[in-house]
Amino acid sequence: MKACIVAVGSEMLTPFRVDTNSLVITERLNAVGYDVRLKAVAADHVEELARVIEGAMGWADLIVITGGLGPTEDDITRDAVARVLDVPLDVDEAIVTGIQERFARRGMTMPENNRRQAMVPRGATVLENRNGSAPGLWLERGATSLVLLPGPPREMTPMLDAVIHDRLAVRSRGSGLFRRVLKLTGRTESDVDARAQPVYSKWTTEQVPIATTILAVSGQIELHLTADAPDCQSGEAALDAAVRQLEAILGDVIYSTEGRPLEAVVGDLLRERKLTVALAESCSGGLLASRLTDIPGSSDYVERGVVCYSNRAKVELAGVPEAMIAEHGAVSEPVARALAQGIRERSRTDVGIGVTGIAGPGGGTPQKPVGLVCVGVAVEDDVWVRTFQFVGGRELVKYQSATAALNMLRLLLLKGPR
Amino acid sequence: MKACIVAVGSEMLTPFRVDTNSLVITERLNAVGYDVRLKAVAADHVEELARVIEGAMGWADLIVITGGLGPTEDDITRDAVARVLDVPLDVDEAIVTGIQERFARRGMTMPENNRRQAMVPRGATVLENRNGSAPGLWLERGATSLVLLPGPPREMTPMLDAVIHDRLAVRSRGSGLFRRVLKLTGRTESDVDARAQPVYSKWTTEQVPIATTILAVSGQIELHLTADAPDCQSGEAALDAAVRQLEAILGDVIYSTEGRPLEAVVGDLLRERKLTVALAESCSGGLLASRLTDIPGSSDYVERGVVCYSNRAKVELAGVPEAMIAEHGAVSEPVARALAQGIRERSRTDVGIGVTGIAGPGGGTPQKPVGLVCVGVAVEDDVWVRTFQFVGGRELVKYQSATAALNMLRLLLLKGPR
Repeated sequence: MKACIVAVGSEMLTPFRVDTNSLVITERLNAVGYDVRLKAVAADHVEELARVIEGAMGWADLIVITGGLGPTEDDITRDAVARVLDVPLDVDEAIVTGIQERFARRGMTMPENNRRQAMVPRGATVLENRNGSAPGLWLERGATSLVLLPGPPREMTPMLDAVIHDRLAVRSRGSGLFRRVLKLTGRTESDVDARAQPVYSKWTTEQVPIATTILAVSGQIELHLTADAPDCQSGEAALDAAVRQLEAILGDVIYSTEGRPLEAVVGDLLRERKLTVALAESCSGGLLASRLTDIPGSSDYVERGVVCYSNRAKVELAGVPEAMIAEHGAVSEPVARALAQGIRERSRTDVGIGVTGIAGPGGGTPQKPVGLVCVGVAVEDDVWVRTFQFVGGRELVKYQSATAALNMLRLLLLKGPR
Repeated sequence: MKACIVAVGSEMLTPFRVDTNSLVITERLNAVGYDVRLKAVAADHVEELARVIEGAMGWADLIVITGGLGPTEDDITRDAVARVLDVPLDVDEAIVTGIQERFARRGMTMPENNRRQAMVPRGATVLENRNGSAPGLWLERGATSLVLLPGPPREMTPMLDAVIHDRLAVRSRGSGLFRRVLKLTGRTESDVDARAQPVYSKWTTEQVPIATTILAVSGQIELHLTADAPDCQSGEAALDAAVRQLEAILGDVIYSTEGRPLEAVVGDLLRERKLTVALAESCSGGLLASRLTDIPGSSDYVERGVVCYSNRAKVELAGVPEAMIAEHGAVSEPVARALAQGIRERSRTDVGIGVTGIAGPGGGTPQKPVGLVCVGVAVEDDVWVRTFQFVGGRELVKYQSATAALNMLRLLLLKGPR
């Protein structure tokens, strides 16, 4: 079955924005057997969008349109679809009431222009939006189904999942593309590929063929496995076997075989072992704490963090001796060790992590260049300290610092202290 | 003048890849007066690509097609264009010789399939590729010009620049699209639009017309202004006047007229006033510190931060009285105030910020639902405390909490204490 994805919004036709919704949509559609044959980004212009939709109606089994469902004059997706299908737009009073209630819950009155969001092309089914005011719409015409979803990913994704569950999965009779995402850190992309390629290259000709893509994202590596299988069971079985082969050659470099974020994997390990953690961050600037606390329930194990950006803060908050900073410099293994031990002792947690480095773009020297980062992880009385040399801009150095610290903690918790 | 950009390649229709060439192309085309009205990504399939090109021929002054010019069977752009224009493909012996020479310089013999790259739709002008074997092509049919460029950016970009210099800039005689991005926070999208729409709707018919797009991103609002002007000077002048009109009606809700991030704007204010800041974050979990320290040079004003996730940490790190937490709860205005004042005093900084709230998804009660956040900002002996009710998931509540705190600090610094 062939699908077309259309993102609506003039702002996505500027040099500043890419459409990333379509990646999530593609992944989900592939899983229920839809092949995405065309993606388009259209301007906020009724006739132009109508032309794109009309073109796709000629060949697509499914057209997914995101964006243009807001309350302003710019939001023209409803109008364009109504024009293509040659149906009127009716006001759906149930939607108006729902939006009014949303505003009321926040102690506000619904502005009049939000009524636009209750306009529905006649014959459409309304799709509930639990995370925003714009409802989605489902329409069918001839062999083509149209799904209209709001643009913000946190609204779009759950609505898409509901449509796939309720309406699209049944059409695929189980066959489809099944995927697995392995996440790795601590090795380069070419090193991982050199090891994995002899294994995964054989999978393309097996009974259930698996295609493998390797990609590097912010210093982490992902292996995406896609099995083309006649049913879910054989697809998942082939993927399970493939993952076991990769685990055998890559070992604990793989931190998730389910595409989970590193901070969630580490959080699970802390929770299982009933351990608490405290952080003393310099160059990562709070990003390590922020990533750990992105995980629901992280208050069970994140006791506290300090961002000791100044030397004074390092001394006062983590007890790093001033003389040590003077002797070795703030970016040094002794200071990383002292940060980890100091914050652990003062917080009376099981684990302490210290991160100190040069995030750049300024502050580098020939001896200590931008991207040099020292990380200490203290578990009980044992401290593991490592020095890294990262490449990339300020935000990427911060991100890689936090990743390295999380990964050191993961390895320590998996293996016990070195 | 209207342009369409088509990227060709089935690999860009997977969940793993986005087309970024189109951003560079859009920037270059805008500068010479082309408005990109549609972007598409098409599969490696002659008929499907032909259908996309045919659709755009009906309205576009310019169609830029990237990719699909390689030597393999997959590379079908030449075939699709020849089909749409109904012309034969001829072998260009000069191209064959050029490719043979490229291979010879590397001590290699040209593989036979590279002859495909010398196939030229009759009537096309060949565009030299100094960085690869695939030449580009330029064709005209009726009112539409077509430019075919290779996919790899380091080949594509210099060829595009040459086309713009040699063929497109002369058409524009200095005219082009000029842009400005305004960023706002503290109001809803519909509220901002209700105020701004009567102003910006008039701009579309002025001598230098300005198109306006409004969009909401993670609880912040952006207004994108695009002026279509005969020259840079009149474009910038029209945008300056437009920005002044919006400033007059929206006031200090606008935090940047140059598309800058809020943390950079606040950082500039702190630096100008030679102020230092310390943070005591609970629900934002370090994200406020991380956003502030994303800005190069932020070590000049970020003295420290604490992530006091546990109540014990609130007491120990920011001196919040235990009795206050027991009486009012950790998420309360008194605690937000105490966090701001406490961290300011202990850090001996000019500014202290306290953030406490319920990020969710758990932990909410009828009295204190998920998304309830109290922020305190202490500047000298004055403390400003506000309570917010955010909507959205955990990460969005964290983000909006940090944004609200940054914005309160910005307003305080602009106006002095309330």
